[in-house]
Amino acid sequence: MIKVGIVGYGNLGRGVCLAVDKAEDFECVGVFTRRQPETVKPITGYKVYSVNDLPKFKGEIDVLILCGGSATDLPATTAGYIKDFNTVDSFDTHAKIPEYFEKLDKIAKENGKIGLISVGWDPGVFSLARLLFGSVLPDGKDYTFWGKGVSQGHSDAIRRIKGVKNAIQYTVPKEDALTRVRNGENPELSVREKHARECFVVAEEGADRTRIEKEIKEMPNYFSDYDTTVHFISEEELKANHGKLAHGGVVIRSGKTTDENSELLQLSLKLDSNPEFTGSVLTAYARAVYRLYKKGETGVKTVFDIPLKYLYPLDPEQAFKTLL
Amino acid sequence: MIKVGIVGYGNLGRGVCLAVDKAEDFECVGVFTRRQPETVKPITGYKVYSVNDLPKFKGEIDVLILCGGSATDLPATTAGYIKDFNTVDSFDTHAKIPEYFEKLDKIAKENGKIGLISVGWDPGVFSLARLLFGSVLPDGKDYTFWGKGVSQGHSDAIRRIKGVKNAIQYTVPKEDALTRVRNGENPELSVREKHARECFVVAEEGADRTRIEKEIKEMPNYFSDYDTTVHFISEEELKANHGKLAHGGVVIRSGKTTDENSELLQLSLKLDSNPEFTGSVLTAYARAVYRLYKKGETGVKTVFDIPLKYLYPLDPEQAFKTLL
Repeated sequence: MIKVGIVGYGNLGRGVCLAVDKAEDFECVGVFTRRQPETVKPITGYKVYSVNDLPKFKGEIDVLILCGGSATDLPATTAGYIKDFNTVDSFDTHAKIPEYFEKLDKIAKENGKIGLISVGWDPGVFSLARLLFGSVLPDGKDYTFWGKGVSQGHSDAIRRIKGVKNAIQYTVPKEDALTRVRNGENPELSVREKHARECFVVAEEGADRTRIEKEIKEMPNYFSDYDTTVHFISEEELKANHGKLAHGGVVIRSGKTTDENSELLQLSLKLDSNPEFTGSVLTAYARAVYRLYKKGETGVKTVFDIPLKYLYPLDPEQAFKTLL
Repeated sequence: MIKVGIVGYGNLGRGVCLAVDKAEDFECVGVFTRRQPETVKPITGYKVYSVNDLPKFKGEIDVLILCGGSATDLPATTAGYIKDFNTVDSFDTHAKIPEYFEKLDKIAKENGKIGLISVGWDPGVFSLARLLFGSVLPDGKDYTFWGKGVSQGHSDAIRRIKGVKNAIQYTVPKEDALTRVRNGENPELSVREKHARECFVVAEEGADRTRIEKEIKEMPNYFSDYDTTVHFISEEELKANHGKLAHGGVVIRSGKTTDENSELLQLSLKLDSNPEFTGSVLTAYARAVYRLYKKGETGVKTVFDIPLKYLYPLDPEQAFKTLL
């Protein structure tokens, strides 16, 4: 049995609990929280401890699955965990991955541990598609479209605007762009041409809606480069119609093998629950961390380093007999 | 530079030549043929030698890319090549892979070589999808659909019927089955419900077309379990409209993360040229064989054993900085 600890119990931690519960080769030692342990009730009934108690579990846990956020939580805490434990996380700030990698790699190697970073669907499954597709079709171009789905970062950005009580933002791929890419046109697409942004906003009573809408649409990086629509709705409507955590997306690469012939590869996801799927991916990769650690490997790794057989729930050396 | 030899110059050998020509880190030592070398003219202008001269190139070639067929050619010849060379092949008789693996593994290990088997799109890219999807969504079911595209094996089977001059057979996935799978229904599908078979046949003058059609439709394994349509056409029409080697297909897995939530994963290919794409995949994996051999690995391997970073044309340890 692979003994795991789950750090954090938000949407993602809940998703990991569900995935660990489905995996017959896993045993959960406990969920570790920064909150009062008695206030956290994992859906799977796992024991809950304070993160401060983690050092006591050194040697008792094969892999820690880190379910904190990428903005502040993981950068501040992973280095500490990796001194005592193998870890897997979903760090998803693409631009900061090299820096995060360097910092952790040194600590992981010094302490003889594995830290597998940036696991999930993007980065993660989509990254594997980009690498595989690009390697087998070098004379081509790839495109990643996200959505339709909620972007937590963009929803948070709207919530920080004065007069906004609550908000949900959907990233929506543009059909016209998808069609052109799927036709193998390999178009140059601006940010605006690839995705639209649709915002559902609950304004505080008496707030200036015209100003709020203007502030959203003109917000640099987040919205100003996109076609953005803003709908003001009630808190009740938001709760009733926008509580789902569905998401999805597609990686598409079209490449030429000769001047006459093009080949088109696509990997797509349609998710009812973004955090439940991400939790499933983290769990499968925790299995790989366990196996690689048993083989004596150490240091920081990404999905690009891991032979896929190590994700297989049964004997990895036999996977080729049924799945190849 | 990675020095490769290409064994065989049929459709697949031609595809490999084109892919090697596009790869800046590859150098082709030569194409090796069983025909008279002077009768073979590779599209890329590579030198041509007799396969009998291969032993002279021992130590001069990093990887041999084997482009023979799976029915008789690869089973008869790979063991001989692997004594002197690292190899990559596209052995695709799924049921016989374990036997092929065992036989070659011993020889590869004894001679300190790597033999990477069953590389292409199925087995190959589609196998990776089945393994990845199954591991991250264990509570689900996967489906592989092939086509629309020409099946060489089925076309050959028709050509062996008395009175048939030429024939092309298309495997066609059934839209209704695809729709049900994409809706996440996880249906039980019979062979007949998944694919149809469409045959274009050139009959010899005076041949009994009714008998030919009956023999096709009743042929066990190949056609009797399928909805099969037979069209008799002229040799000119066959050449004009059925000379393309287009193919494609999709691996779909739908799985539950909870009773309420399903996640749907799909990997699809749409190929103008099946052999050119397969040649590109073989070439990318030849790069991986070269790199793993440099690291001291030996024995028979499949795509499940290879970290995807080793396919990357540039520094594999840096791939995560741009593609993750």
